[in-house]
Amino acid sequence: MKALVYLGPAKKALEERPKPEIAAATDAIIKITKTTICGTDLHILKGDVPSCLPGRILGHEGVGIVDQTGPAVTAFKPGDRVLISCISACGKCIYCRKLMFSHCTTGGWILGNSIDGTQAEFVRIPHADTSLYLMPDGADEEALVMLSDILPTGFECGVLNGRVQPGNTVAIVGAGPIGLAALLTAQFYSPAAIIMIDLDDNRLDVARRFGATACVNSADGKAAATIMKLTGNLGVDTAIEAVGIPATFELCEQIVAPGGTIANIGVHGTAVALHLECLWDRNITITTRLVDTASTPTLLNILHSHRIDPKLLITHRFTLDRILDAYETFAHAASTRALKVIIEA
Amino acid sequence: MKALVYLGPAKKALEERPKPEIAAATDAIIKITKTTICGTDLHILKGDVPSCLPGRILGHEGVGIVDQTGPAVTAFKPGDRVLISCISACGKCIYCRKLMFSHCTTGGWILGNSIDGTQAEFVRIPHADTSLYLMPDGADEEALVMLSDILPTGFECGVLNGRVQPGNTVAIVGAGPIGLAALLTAQFYSPAAIIMIDLDDNRLDVARRFGATACVNSADGKAAATIMKLTGNLGVDTAIEAVGIPATFELCEQIVAPGGTIANIGVHGTAVALHLECLWDRNITITTRLVDTASTPTLLNILHSHRIDPKLLITHRFTLDRILDAYETFAHAASTRALKVIIEA
Amino acid sequence: MKALVYLGPAKKALEERPKPEIAAATDAIIKITKTTICGTDLHILKGDVPSCLPGRILGHEGVGIVDQTGPAVTAFKPGDRVLISCISACGKCIYCRKLMFSHCTTGGWILGNSIDGTQAEFVRIPHADTSLYLMPDGADEEALVMLSDILPTGFECGVLNGRVQPGNTVAIVGAGPIGLAALLTAQFYSPAAIIMIDLDDNRLDVARRFGATACVNSADGKAAATIMKLTGNLGVDTAIEAVGIPATFELCEQIVAPGGTIANIGVHGTAVALHLECLWDRNITITTRLVDTASTPTLLNILHSHRIDPKLLITHRFTLDRILDAYETFAHAASTRALKVIIEA
Amino acid sequence: MKALVYLGPAKKALEERPKPEIAAATDAIIKITKTTICGTDLHILKGDVPSCLPGRILGHEGVGIVDQTGPAVTAFKPGDRVLISCISACGKCIYCRKLMFSHCTTGGWILGNSIDGTQAEFVRIPHADTSLYLMPDGADEEALVMLSDILPTGFECGVLNGRVQPGNTVAIVGAGPIGLAALLTAQFYSPAAIIMIDLDDNRLDVARRFGATACVNSADGKAAATIMKLTGNLGVDTAIEAVGIPATFELCEQIVAPGGTIANIGVHGTAVALHLECLWDRNITITTRLVDTASTPTLLNILHSHRIDPKLLITHRFTLDRILDAYETFAHAASTRALKVIIEA
Repeated sequence: MKALVYLGPAKKALEERPKPEIAAATDAIIKITKTTICGTDLHILKGDVPSCLPGRILGHEGVGIVDQTGPAVTAFKPGDRVLISCISACGKCIYCRKLMFSHCTTGGWILGNSIDGTQAEFVRIPHADTSLYLMPDGADEEALVMLSDILPTGFECGVLNGRVQPGNTVAIVGAGPIGLAALLTAQFYSPAAIIMIDLDDNRLDVARRFGATACVNSADGKAAATIMKLTGNLGVDTAIEAVGIPATFELCEQIVAPGGTIANIGVHGTAVALHLECLWDRNITITTRLVDTASTPTLLNILHSHRIDPKLLITHRFTLDRILDAYETFAHAASTRALKVIIEA
Repeated sequence: MKALVYLGPAKKALEERPKPEIAAATDAIIKITKTTICGTDLHILKGDVPSCLPGRILGHEGVGIVDQTGPAVTAFKPGDRVLISCISACGKCIYCRKLMFSHCTTGGWILGNSIDGTQAEFVRIPHADTSLYLMPDGADEEALVMLSDILPTGFECGVLNGRVQPGNTVAIVGAGPIGLAALLTAQFYSPAAIIMIDLDDNRLDVARRFGATACVNSADGKAAATIMKLTGNLGVDTAIEAVGIPATFELCEQIVAPGGTIANIGVHGTAVALHLECLWDRNITITTRLVDTASTPTLLNILHSHRIDPKLLITHRFTLDRILDAYETFAHAASTRALKVIIEA
Repeated sequence: MKALVYLGPAKKALEERPKPEIAAATDAIIKITKTTICGTDLHILKGDVPSCLPGRILGHEGVGIVDQTGPAVTAFKPGDRVLISCISACGKCIYCRKLMFSHCTTGGWILGNSIDGTQAEFVRIPHADTSLYLMPDGADEEALVMLSDILPTGFECGVLNGRVQPGNTVAIVGAGPIGLAALLTAQFYSPAAIIMIDLDDNRLDVARRFGATACVNSADGKAAATIMKLTGNLGVDTAIEAVGIPATFELCEQIVAPGGTIANIGVHGTAVALHLECLWDRNITITTRLVDTASTPTLLNILHSHRIDPKLLITHRFTLDRILDAYETFAHAASTRALKVIIEA
Repeated sequence: MKALVYLGPAKKALEERPKPEIAAATDAIIKITKTTICGTDLHILKGDVPSCLPGRILGHEGVGIVDQTGPAVTAFKPGDRVLISCISACGKCIYCRKLMFSHCTTGGWILGNSIDGTQAEFVRIPHADTSLYLMPDGADEEALVMLSDILPTGFECGVLNGRVQPGNTVAIVGAGPIGLAALLTAQFYSPAAIIMIDLDDNRLDVARRFGATACVNSADGKAAATIMKLTGNLGVDTAIEAVGIPATFELCEQIVAPGGTIANIGVHGTAVALHLECLWDRNITITTRLVDTASTPTLLNILHSHRIDPKLLITHRFTLDRILDAYETFAHAASTRALKVIIEA
C-alpha cells in the first residue's frame, strides 16, 4: 500500500509499504477513506518529537472502513464506517478509568508517532473498541475528519478547560486551525464576547466569519492594552493559548481577569515566565492538556444536530498520490491560506 | 489607645493613637481582645508592600467586642463578641457577588495595609455586616484568632483550590504556619497521604504530629526524586506551594501527577519558570488565590464540631504592651520555634 | 398614584394609593416605566398564596428610574435607570452568602406578595443595592422586563438546575411563557435536541419558531412513548417540568434517561407520586428551585451580546390605565395567544 | 463445587454444581476465598427480584484468587489475589464511558442475579479486566469483602450523591449495614454533625460507636421535630435514605434544609409521595443511584491509608458449609445483632 513515511528531520516520502496486520486481539485494520495533516506532523518533520523514529508512517486523523478485527473486538465488524480518534485508549488503566485517555498506559497519542499512522491506505488501530467511533448515518466524511483531533483539541483543551460559560468574555491567542477550532466550539456555551488575536489579518478575517466578536492584530505589540480596553479594564474570563511560544502565553497572563482561566493548548518547546509576582493574588487558574477525545460522543451529537459546521476549516483537497503537495500547501499556510487539507485515500 | 505602627522599612513602634471613629454608616468599631502577627506583617516591614504607607497601624487578624456600630449595620450590636476577617467585603460589587471577596472593589485586604489594622486596642471595620462573624457560644478566643486569616488561607488557597479529595496524595511544600494550616485543613478530606517538605527538621517534626504521613527534608536537593519514589513514580494529585520562591514552585512542577493540581499559596516577589515544555501535555491545573474568607462559616462549623484544633498552631503568648517582643519571637522562628503568637490587647 | 390592588380571591382593582416612602436606610423608591403580569399573579388572584393579603399592590417585575434612595444605598442614585429583580436580597444572611437569594431571611419573593409591588407608578425596593441592576446603555426596556423574573426562572430552575450541556437531549413539558423562557435559555448550551411538550398546538408552533427541534402534543396520552421513540429509547438527559401538576411531573419521570435530571420549575399545589420503585436504580437527579436571580449579571451580558431576543416573549402591550384589560388578555391565553404583556406606567 | 442456589421464593439449598468455565475471551474464573450475604439476597429469596430465576447461584460480593483467564484478559493472571466488584462493567458502552458502570449494557448488577454468583467455591467474572481489582499487598481479606458492594454503595449513593461537605449537617435514616456504611464513609468529608435515625436502639448504639454525633429513635413518630430542633430549625444539608420505604423517604423530605440534598440508597418497592407543594421552592436536590463502584480505586487507597476500618461492620463468621446458618443469622438481625457475616469458602 501507499504510505507517507517520515525519514528523519526534513525528510519524508510517499512509499510502498506492506498492509498492516492484526497484532493483538483488540486491534482492527481500517481502510482509510479520508485523512488530513496536523501541525504536529510538521513538528515531527522538524525533528522535535523524539518518540517518532525514522521509518514511521505519519498521521493520526481520519475516517475509514473496518477491514478486519481482532478476536476480542466486539463493537465493530468489517464494513463498518468509522471515525479514528487521534488518541488510543485501552479503557482499563488508571488513567482511562478517569477518562484521561491521553495518558493511557498502553495508548495515548501513539498513531503516527510510536506506531504507524493514518496517512496510508490502511492503518492498524490498537484498542479498537475504545478508540474508534461508528459514523452516524448520513454523516459527512470530511466533517468527521475534523473530529479525529482538531475539534476535540480546541474543545477540551481550550473551551472545557477554559470553563467558557454563557455571558463570559473569551480571548483566543492564535487564529490557526487549532485556535479556530476553539472559536467554533466556544460558541457552544454562548459567551458574550470572543476576541481573536493573531499576527495575520487573513486569519483574523476568517475568525470574524467564524464568529469572533472582535479581532486584534498583535503586530503592534499593544495587544494586551487593546484587550484591556475592549473589556472595560476587567480582562477576560478565559484566555486560550493556541500558539505555543512564551510571548503568547505571557499575553494571556496579562489579560486574564481576576478569577479567570488561562487554558493552554499550544505545544511548547521552552519554559515560559509565569509572573507570580503579579498573579499570586489574582485567583486565576492555568490548565494544560493533551486532548483526551473524551468529548467525541458529545461532538458527534452536536455535529448531528447541525449546530456546528466543521467543514468551514477545510480549505484544500488532495488525493493520497499528491500528499507531498498537500504537505507543501499546509506548511506554507501564510501564502496558501490553508487551514485543514483533506487527503482522499 | 496603644497601637503598633509601621514607620517605614525595618521601623515600627508601639505608639499612642486616637481611638478610631465610625466613618461610614456600615462601619463598626471593635475593641480588640486578641490579635496575632502574620508573615505578611514581616513583608510590610521589609518594605515589600507599597500599598502600606508609614504611619499605618498593622494587623489584619483578631477577635474582639463590638464597641460602636454605624447606622446601617444590622447584623451586630455593641457588646457582641466577634471574629474579624482579614478580608473586608462590601457584599455588593461584581466580585463579592461571585464570593470573591478578596477582590471586593472597596474592600479586600485593606486592614493593616491601606487602612489601620488590629494590632491596637480598637479597630474600625468597614462593611461590618459582611466582614465580621459572631463568635459562637463557648468558642475559644485563641482558636478563633486562627480563623481570621491563616486557616481560611490554608484551606481555600491550598486545600480547596488544590481539590484535595478522599484517597488522594498531597504534598505541601513549606511547613511554616501557612503550610501547617494547609496540613490541618487538608485532613477534612481524608487524603491517603500528605507529604510535607521543608528545610527545617523541627518544623517537619511538628508536621508529623499534625498528621503528615511522610516528611521530606529538601536540604539535599533530592526532594523531587524522593517524592516520586514515595508515590510509586506517579507523582502527587495535589502539590501545595506554601513558601513563595521559584525553587519551591518548580519543585511542585516536578512532582505533580498527570491530571493533578498545583495550588499556590506563597506570596511571590519574582517570576518563576513554568516548564510548559514538560507540562503542556500533562493535563495539570495551577491555581493562585488571595484568601476570600468565603469558607469562614464552614470553618466555624468545623471548629464547633471539634474536628480541628487550631490552637495547635499557637506557640507563644504576649500582651499588647510587649508586642515588640512578640515580633522578635515571630521573626526568628528558626530559633524560637514560633508558629503563631497570640497578643492579648 | 395608580396601583393594581389585590382585594381577595378573584377581586382586584386599579386604585389610587399614596406614593411609597423610604422605610429603611437601604431602600430605594423606583418610578416604574414598564412592568408585566406573571402567572403567579393569577395564582394570588385564585387565593392560592396565603402570604399575600388583600390590599396588596401586585407585581414583582419591571424596569424604572430611581426616584429616591435611603442613606445606606451606595450603588444607585436618583435618575439611574434600573432593572428590578423579582427577588429582594440583603446580601448578608446565611442564604445570601450562598447566592441563594430566594431564601434571604429578610427578602426573597416579597414584592407584590408580602409587601407592595410593581404594578403601580412607584414601588419601594428594600435592600436596593443588592436587588436592583443598572440598565446597560442602549438596553431595550421591554427586553429587560423579561429579566426581572421569567428569563432567570427558566434559566436557573430549568436550564442550570437541569444541567443542560452541549450535545445533550432536553425535553420541556409545558410551552407557556416559563417553558418558552427555558427553551430560549437552554440554547445557551447548544443541546443537540430540545423536545417541547404541550396540549396547545399554537404554543407548540411558537416553540418551533423559538428553536425547539421537535414538538409533541400530549393530548393523545402517548407523549412518553413518542419521546422515547424520538430518543432511540434512551430517554432525555434533562426533563424540565414547567406546568406544576402531577401528570406533567410524572411524564418527566417516565422520559428521563439513566443518569439524567428532572428540573422542576412548576408551582405545585399537591404532592406527586415519585415512582422510586422504577427510579431507585436509575441514577437520576431531581431538583426544585425558587429563582434566585443570581444569574442576572450573566443574562445582562448575554442580552448585551445579542445572543438572545427576550422580546420574542412579548405579545401584547397596554398602559397602566388599562391594566385590567391586560389581566383579561393574559388570563385567557388560550384564546388571546398571550405570552407576556407589557404594561407601560 | 459447593454453591448456595436459589430455588424459588423462600427456597434455597447448598448444592453440588459444576465448576464454571470461561465463556467469553474477557472472562476470568475466580476461586472464592471469602464472600458475604447482602440484603439484596434476602430480597431475591422473597421473590422480589424477577430477573433472578430459580437455579441461580447467589452472591455478588467476595475476594478470591484468579484461577483461569480468557485470552483477552490482560490485567490479571492466574494466582492474582483479587477483589470482585458487585458491578460488572465492559468499559466500552455509552454508560461505561460516563463511569456509570451500573448501567453497562452487557453488565451492571448481574452476578448472583442474571448469572451465577459468588456464594460458591468458584465464580465466572465477565469483563474481568474492568470488574476485578488487584488486592494490595498486605490488605486484609475480610476488610476487602466490604469493598465489593456495601462501602461503595454507602459512599457513592449516599455520601457522594448527597454532596457531604466539611462542616455540613448530615442525617442518615436507617442504621442497618448500608446506613452504617454511609456513616463510615461520610466521615471522609468531616461533616460537623451526623444524625442517625433508626427504630432499633442496639443499632443506634453501634452508630454512636461508629461516629454518629447524635442518634434519634424514630419509634415515637417525632423524629422530624427532633431533628429540626437538633439543627436549630435549619434542617440538614444532606438526608440519606437507607431503608427503602415511603415513611423514611418522607422523613427525609421533612428534614432537608433549603438548598440541601436527599440521597436515596434504599431499594423501594412502591411509589412515595413527593410533597412538591412544600418543596417546589426549597431549592433541594434528590438523587437515586445503583452503585457504580466507580469509587473502588478511591476506597482501596483510603483502606490502605488506614483512615477507615471496614471490619467494624463484620459481626459473624461462617464456613461455606454452614452458609445456611449464615443466612439464618443475617436474616434475623434484630435478635442476632448481625451486620455483615463473612463466609469462608
